[in-house]
Amino acid sequence: MGARVGIVMGSDSDWPVMQAAGQAVAEFGIDYAADVVSAHRMPDAMIDYGRTAHEQGLEVIIAGAGGAAHLPGMLAAVTPLPVIGVPVPLKYLDGMDSLLSIVQMPAGVPVATVSIGNARNAGLLAVRMLAIGDPGLTAAMIDFQDELRQAAEAKGAKVREQQS
Amino acid sequence: MGARVGIVMGSDSDWPVMQAAGQAVAEFGIDYAADVVSAHRMPDAMIDYGRTAHEQGLEVIIAGAGGAAHLPGMLAAVTPLPVIGVPVPLKYLDGMDSLLSIVQMPAGVPVATVSIGNARNAGLLAVRMLAIGDPGLTAAMIDFQDELRQAAEAKGAKVREQQS
Amino acid sequence: MGARVGIVMGSDSDWPVMQAAGQAVAEFGIDYAADVVSAHRMPDAMIDYGRTAHEQGLEVIIAGAGGAAHLPGMLAAVTPLPVIGVPVPLKYLDGMDSLLSIVQMPAGVPVATVSIGNARNAGLLAVRMLAIGDPGLTAAMIDFQDELRQAAEAKGAKVREQQS
Amino acid sequence: MGARVGIVMGSDSDWPVMQAAGQAVAEFGIDYAADVVSAHRMPDAMIDYGRTAHEQGLEVIIAGAGGAAHLPGMLAAVTPLPVIGVPVPLKYLDGMDSLLSIVQMPAGVPVATVSIGNARNAGLLAVRMLAIGDPGLTAAMIDFQDELRQAAEAKGAKVREQQS
Amino acid sequence: MGARVGIVMGSDSDWPVMQAAGQAVAEFGIDYAADVVSAHRMPDAMIDYGRTAHEQGLEVIIAGAGGAAHLPGMLAAVTPLPVIGVPVPLKYLDGMDSLLSIVQMPAGVPVATVSIGNARNAGLLAVRMLAIGDPGLTAAMIDFQDELRQAAEAKGAKVREQQS
Amino acid sequence: MGARVGIVMGSDSDWPVMQAAGQAVAEFGIDYAADVVSAHRMPDAMIDYGRTAHEQGLEVIIAGAGGAAHLPGMLAAVTPLPVIGVPVPLKYLDGMDSLLSIVQMPAGVPVATVSIGNARNAGLLAVRMLAIGDPGLTAAMIDFQDELRQAAEAKGAKVREQQS
Amino acid sequence: MGARVGIVMGSDSDWPVMQAAGQAVAEFGIDYAADVVSAHRMPDAMIDYGRTAHEQGLEVIIAGAGGAAHLPGMLAAVTPLPVIGVPVPLKYLDGMDSLLSIVQMPAGVPVATVSIGNARNAGLLAVRMLAIGDPGLTAAMIDFQDELRQAAEAKGAKVREQQS
Amino acid sequence: MGARVGIVMGSDSDWPVMQAAGQAVAEFGIDYAADVVSAHRMPDAMIDYGRTAHEQGLEVIIAGAGGAAHLPGMLAAVTPLPVIGVPVPLKYLDGMDSLLSIVQMPAGVPVATVSIGNARNAGLLAVRMLAIGDPGLTAAMIDFQDELRQAAEAKGAKVREQQS
Repeated sequence: MGARVGIVMGSDSDWPVMQAAGQAVAEFGIDYAADVVSAHRMPDAMIDYGRTAHEQGLEVIIAGAGGAAHLPGMLAAVTPLPVIGVPVPLKYLDGMDSLLSIVQMPAGVPVATVSIGNARNAGLLAVRMLAIGDPGLTAAMIDFQDELRQAAEAKGAKVREQQS
Repeated sequence: MGARVGIVMGSDSDWPVMQAAGQAVAEFGIDYAADVVSAHRMPDAMIDYGRTAHEQGLEVIIAGAGGAAHLPGMLAAVTPLPVIGVPVPLKYLDGMDSLLSIVQMPAGVPVATVSIGNARNAGLLAVRMLAIGDPGLTAAMIDFQDELRQAAEAKGAKVREQQS
Repeated sequence: MGARVGIVMGSDSDWPVMQAAGQAVAEFGIDYAADVVSAHRMPDAMIDYGRTAHEQGLEVIIAGAGGAAHLPGMLAAVTPLPVIGVPVPLKYLDGMDSLLSIVQMPAGVPVATVSIGNARNAGLLAVRMLAIGDPGLTAAMIDFQDELRQAAEAKGAKVREQQS
Repeated sequence: MGARVGIVMGSDSDWPVMQAAGQAVAEFGIDYAADVVSAHRMPDAMIDYGRTAHEQGLEVIIAGAGGAAHLPGMLAAVTPLPVIGVPVPLKYLDGMDSLLSIVQMPAGVPVATVSIGNARNAGLLAVRMLAIGDPGLTAAMIDFQDELRQAAEAKGAKVREQQS
Repeated sequence: MGARVGIVMGSDSDWPVMQAAGQAVAEFGIDYAADVVSAHRMPDAMIDYGRTAHEQGLEVIIAGAGGAAHLPGMLAAVTPLPVIGVPVPLKYLDGMDSLLSIVQMPAGVPVATVSIGNARNAGLLAVRMLAIGDPGLTAAMIDFQDELRQAAEAKGAKVREQQS
Repeated sequence: MGARVGIVMGSDSDWPVMQAAGQAVAEFGIDYAADVVSAHRMPDAMIDYGRTAHEQGLEVIIAGAGGAAHLPGMLAAVTPLPVIGVPVPLKYLDGMDSLLSIVQMPAGVPVATVSIGNARNAGLLAVRMLAIGDPGLTAAMIDFQDELRQAAEAKGAKVREQQS
Repeated sequence: MGARVGIVMGSDSDWPVMQAAGQAVAEFGIDYAADVVSAHRMPDAMIDYGRTAHEQGLEVIIAGAGGAAHLPGMLAAVTPLPVIGVPVPLKYLDGMDSLLSIVQMPAGVPVATVSIGNARNAGLLAVRMLAIGDPGLTAAMIDFQDELRQAAEAKGAKVREQQS
Repeated sequence: MGARVGIVMGSDSDWPVMQAAGQAVAEFGIDYAADVVSAHRMPDAMIDYGRTAHEQGLEVIIAGAGGAAHLPGMLAAVTPLPVIGVPVPLKYLDGMDSLLSIVQMPAGVPVATVSIGNARNAGLLAVRMLAIGDPGLTAAMIDFQDELRQAAEAKGAKVREQQS
């Protein structure tokens, strides 16, 4: 089976941030395909990517962008799929421009925005979407949450030791 | 068939904002159930709501909250379902506190955040999630996007008239 | 001669703000054409508008948008013409989201951004661009600046009277 | 006598910041117990911690959290004890998101918020609370303030020397 | 028994905001005394108020201030009592200046800051402080939290009715 | 004797805000002269105003401006006199743009900035400057501060009555 | 033929940022002349530069400035040419003060503002302005945009390789 | 003759920033005295410093402070002298908290605020205040401004060379 999650970004320089999204979906056994799709530098390919995504077998799109970040919103305009936006922080403003450019979409065209620079959460959100109506994946997400709990509890032991 | 989308908020005073989410999913023939679930005033019921949501047949949760807005994130911590957060603007700060409290979740626990006060987009995002693997709903979303286009084009005629 | 300045916006509800751009260019005897071109609701028409603008005789594009304001930047991506962006303030955030979404464009694709809600300045900036190499229009702009001076000086008289 | 102040945080990585709270209360001879209690990763344990804290002999809770910082507010929802929130700054936004997520609590559920990253002040605030009705501890706080004064005065000597 | 909570503000124009603090402590049967104490207009009286507060029987001080809000921090500098700061929003900036001026205190001198304009929470926080080691008041706070829960649950019924 | 304080602004529409500066200096028996001097609309007259101000007998300049507020800084560049800047809030951004445009001057060219919209404080600051080496005016300022104290104390009586 | 684009800044320390503007126009075979013109340190020369720019053969002015950045706006006040402003980020505030000081110009005096620190975009915007009515330069800009597209597409290959 | 300018700060750790104020006044042959005066750690000494400053021969006070920066405003409350505030940036928030805490003073008690971290400008502003009615100092300030101009012009030569 082909990729179910498309991960796109405006430049290969975003890959170090965005690969955490791919890693997250892969942890759940879900295939993804990452690519460079720039709203500002290759608008036709971007429109084409968005418009045909659901026909290519993609079920969720994750798009990372920084500054005047238009990629997630433009993709959301041309695909019926849910689009997850990752605000990539640039050199200035700590990603506040990226966040507002992605999250403040007008009525009719939503982008599911996650925290600044947090591509891993974008991947996990995609997994939750794909787990709708999929008991196996739902169970895997519940297991994952249980592992988060156990890891957090283990950290408590360290803190309790350090203070004594 | 029961409700597939749960719409929750901290108080009935949020209903005027949040009902646009219900209206959006209803436009697509999807049942929803709205309720008051307060993270700060009824934490046990909130945890219980989140933990059993997927067993009750819910497939997506939409949560609206304002200020130190903890409801969406806390629900995301206890449900495997995707949680959509609506930053409700309060009297001061124009919803910037609500936005940051909802979107800036730590790795592991994503909230799909939409624009400030934009519950309609939360509803439409829920529809997109439910349309994954549902050709009929996917087609309906494509039709909806086409209607947005036609409405926008009709507005162009008005502007062209007003300037002449 | 046809329109030299294209004035576009995402909805006819932006026209009350954006018409000041048209009025400004008209004061200098320049024809303009206003229209609704929505990046999110009619992306194909938007791309088409931008790509063919210079072939249609347009020499400058003025684009107003609010929130996650993608129209100016997307047009700049597909036209070789200078694009002037007007950040339209929405109900929340006083236009700060609109400003950052428009001005923070990546290297390669500039948008000439003016102040929040200041469509008149967008029009005047278009006139300055068109006045390059046009002695008559340059002289008109110098006259305009002289009128601004005279009007400001006249206001001084009022203040001097009011304090005595 | 057991711990009177509970110091909790979402991860052991917060301990380098939060241990200053423990150090401050220890300077006043007050026992504390530090632990990892994550709102998002171990919500049941978090609720349980808050709900039973006053029965365990705790009198004040200090909670540090960053980003969408829900721990202080959620604890305040389930304990009758005063909860002191420390906004922990993360990689982006300089702790502004942490501050707003902690301080902007709705009516009914207060969190006593201190400055960004200032766990020492959280500890000192806990001491002031415990000093209510405790003449010895009140006197110790007055002495502490007097030492602050003397230390500040000593610094004045250094500055006076450096300029001459 | 005299007042246990002092509620001070820079001007009587702050009373409409600050009286909610008095109302909250009164609901728990605790006496308070409200007064105007301005850091900038009556600094000696302010210092005197702070320095003698614990000798006058006060156990907690609540101070409201706006803009360059120095009253809470200055009182905290001269009293060993816990000081709760209420950021009062002024005409501009939505209370962000008030919040930062109150919460960002240097190490050594904490102010327990509550949300912008939320004097009621200041009162409730004072009650929690006074409830330390007071089983009756602790039980009353637990009852109060239970009433919050019941009120929130009752609001749920309204929302459920409105959607059907 | 002629005016010692010059009060300038970019438009007569700023007079309702700026006249409080004139009123303040007049309360201390100091003559002022108000005028419209626009950095952007009458730059030559602005430069001339600044450059000759000290020769005209002016001793302090108060300049109010909003948005990209250049008047105070440009005057400071051409006069040796102290320049006081009043950030005038415009329709959007609550005066934050005005404040930053005025206060953030580069090394070498200071502007004495007061709070947003607070022309009265600009006037009082001018009085303090003129009181340097003037025992009478110094005494008047001390009296003024004493009146502030008395007025604040009187307000305390009102608050004490309202709560009883 | 002489310089068509003037590039000015307040200090030679801005040259490392601003030279990217010169490089961009040079790539299109356009001559430019860079100089230091400080609004605050050499106001007369600044006014003179702006007022005579169009007589010297300049057709566009690019001005970079930081903090209370007055140079672009002051030049726009005295020249009929289009002025492009580059917000130069200083040590604090990440260029937000520079941006607001440049972009928020009052009606009548526009500055074409580009993104923070993005002098290259200022150069490219100047080229677009000069390309108005110049088919050769318009074609060159279209070619440039095509090269951007090709470069972005090539980056996609890298990302696709890295994930496999 | 003794010190005419008092330079105070909350800790000797501020001296590296604040000494630039002393250096600036010294360049004009004016004596200053620097000291540590902490509003929060030595409030009585702070009040005493402010109240007696004009009797000690001081004519201007420069106060640097960071975070919840209360020193400049509190001094302004107790002295009739002009007080210049320097917002000292701390580890987080880039001095925005310091700026707002200093500049946003209520009506009646002005602080002459300069740019973030710019103690040199505080010194130069003090010189301008002392130059009122002092022809020699006024001439020195004019000379200083002329030197600024010459230095800026010299920098232009460097830029012109680098581009050729």
